Amino acid sequence: MVFSYNQLFAFTESVFLSIDCPAEDATQATEALLSADLRGIDSHGVARLIGYIRLWEAGRINATPRVGVVYETPSTAVVDGDGGLGLVVGPKAMAVALEKARLAGTGWVSVRNSNHFGIAGYHAMKALPHDMIGLAMTNASPLVAPTYSLDRLLGTNPIAVAIPAGEQPDFVLDMATTTAANGKLEIAQRKNLPIPAGWAQDAEGRSSTDAHAVKNGGALQPLGGETGSHKGYGLGAVVDIFSAVLSGANYGPWVPPFVAFLQPSANPVGQGLGHFFGAMRVDAFRPADEFKAHMDNWITTFRSANAVEGQQVLIPGDPEREMAKRRLLDGITLLDPVVKDLETVGKKFGVQL
Amino acid sequence: MVFSYNQLFAFTESVFLSIDCPAEDATQATEALLSADLRGIDSHGVARLIGYIRLWEAGRINATPRVGVVYETPSTAVVDGDGGLGLVVGPKAMAVALEKARLAGTGWVSVRNSNHFGIAGYHAMKALPHDMIGLAMTNASPLVAPTYSLDRLLGTNPIAVAIPAGEQPDFVLDMATTTAANGKLEIAQRKNLPIPAGWAQDAEGRSSTDAHAVKNGGALQPLGGETGSHKGYGLGAVVDIFSAVLSGANYGPWVPPFVAFLQPSANPVGQGLGHFFGAMRVDAFRPADEFKAHMDNWITTFRSANAVEGQQVLIPGDPEREMAKRRLLDGITLLDPVVKDLETVGKKFGVQL
Repeated sequence: MVFSYNQLFAFTESVFLSIDCPAEDATQATEALLSADLRGIDSHGVARLIGYIRLWEAGRINATPRVGVVYETPSTAVVDGDGGLGLVVGPKAMAVALEKARLAGTGWVSVRNSNHFGIAGYHAMKALPHDMIGLAMTNASPLVAPTYSLDRLLGTNPIAVAIPAGEQPDFVLDMATTTAANGKLEIAQRKNLPIPAGWAQDAEGRSSTDAHAVKNGGALQPLGGETGSHKGYGLGAVVDIFSAVLSGANYGPWVPPFVAFLQPSANPVGQGLGHFFGAMRVDAFRPADEFKAHMDNWITTFRSANAVEGQQVLIPGDPEREMAKRRLLDGITLLDPVVKDLETVGKKFGVQL
Repeated sequence: MVFSYNQLFAFTESVFLSIDCPAEDATQATEALLSADLRGIDSHGVARLIGYIRLWEAGRINATPRVGVVYETPSTAVVDGDGGLGLVVGPKAMAVALEKARLAGTGWVSVRNSNHFGIAGYHAMKALPHDMIGLAMTNASPLVAPTYSLDRLLGTNPIAVAIPAGEQPDFVLDMATTTAANGKLEIAQRKNLPIPAGWAQDAEGRSSTDAHAVKNGGALQPLGGETGSHKGYGLGAVVDIFSAVLSGANYGPWVPPFVAFLQPSANPVGQGLGHFFGAMRVDAFRPADEFKAHMDNWITTFRSANAVEGQQVLIPGDPEREMAKRRLLDGITLLDPVVKDLETVGKKFGVQL
């Protein structure tokens, strides 16, 4: 079924208002959540609304958090999310990073006591209108086995970097540190299709092409898969440490699960889950116009490279930007199970989809 | 042939003195270069000494550079390397980052007009004794094809992150953003062995198992190889932009080649090659003791995970640290062609190996 962006926005905002989010937070959470649907990262958008609601019902999301800076230096801060939606806590923490960068050149904010924040790219892109480079990372529920591990110790721990250009569209990298995002696995599960080698391992740690391998005691594999998963493991580890060991959130196997039917650890090592945000003023290095002119040259050089027959070299962010343009015009197609979930949520709060 | 660390140190230092490096710079360059041999990254150590010397002979390395800050804010700086050895420029720029971090919580330095700096990990680790997290990146001669590209537009562009622990050894990630470092390809070439799929592509952009593919018009492939090279491409791109577009160095296909027999571009877009360094004071986020105790817990948790039969989960930096211990005791084995190169260099300057 196809829905317009505005239709999904109105519905989602009403749902967040129904759980008593303040108006500003409901709007913010909706914009952050739906940025995933617009950009084609369907697994992280409205499909997860019911998941957030269930966590709220389980008392694991605070709809009226007092998000605040608990420690700071000229270029750093630790933000406590007070158990709020990551969709709300994230933008508030990123705003702190932007303000630090305005004054000190760069700003770096580690966040504890938060929840899942949607797509990392949304938060990193907040830097772009200010001629700043934005970075965003988050840890997440443990689904990934480090190289040689049978245990799941890391989340898909994404890294996003947004870099402003001039005439050209901005550069926006947004990537999980696994070979494939869990969302892609979920799609293969629903369609009952095999998955490529390097995505997942079975319970004995062997590479598997079974889309259900993770559910059956296996794990997602770090980026690099068959040939060098230690690099993806290393990157995912850095995201975990910057997001949680720096801030005092839970890390590794202690990160609270996103699904409400799994209980968080009875012996947490920190509070909630963690994020890490960065902002660098471009003109803290060289004049912004100069930088952006060179970014334009960088982008056009890469885009016009000789390419494999029938393909073109893309710039990170190209596919998502095109998708967002299209979906704003043509609407967003949701799978039947997602529509059903939204109707369940709507019924609960008397909100019409 | 086996050489002691001290023997190689004395030789290399004498060579750098012979090209008129100031004494302090010769010592620094030697320590940086040999850290690669100690840590088992043989491709980046003394094996490259002859390469640096040839660049100096070609007038492309300045042995007496005036390295200086050309622009700064409280948490950022741009450093001009004045065409010096990256082995000398890198540590000076990292020292600026550390001093910024001391005062502002974090320090971020982009460097232009430099040359190859050895292994990234060496520079990142400079932060550890100060209870800081260190980051180091550099761009490099174009050998890597972005996803779908036939052209080589990026270097192996490594990222290093060093994070201090307490009782446990420190966490040190040091990784090229390609599936495999070029050095591994060179070893397969010398031994005439095939390479795994995902390492390289041929001139038509097809994945190749021929170790000579890159030499014959092909390219190295970004991390992810067969299944998701767009992520390695994206990371390599970020390294290129942070190192060179921020600083005013050459980026992409304009990065000067390391080999003296290839000429740098006649129409450069910047000066020399670029690096990017970061330092974050741990106690700019939370007390260092607290952070390090949690790092110890992180490390022991990961290290003691259930593992695939006969294996153990490693912490980034484990293999290199063990190698360094062993090689300090047992010496460093050099391949015959490397010894020959060193003898050639020694003869040139009347220095005994």
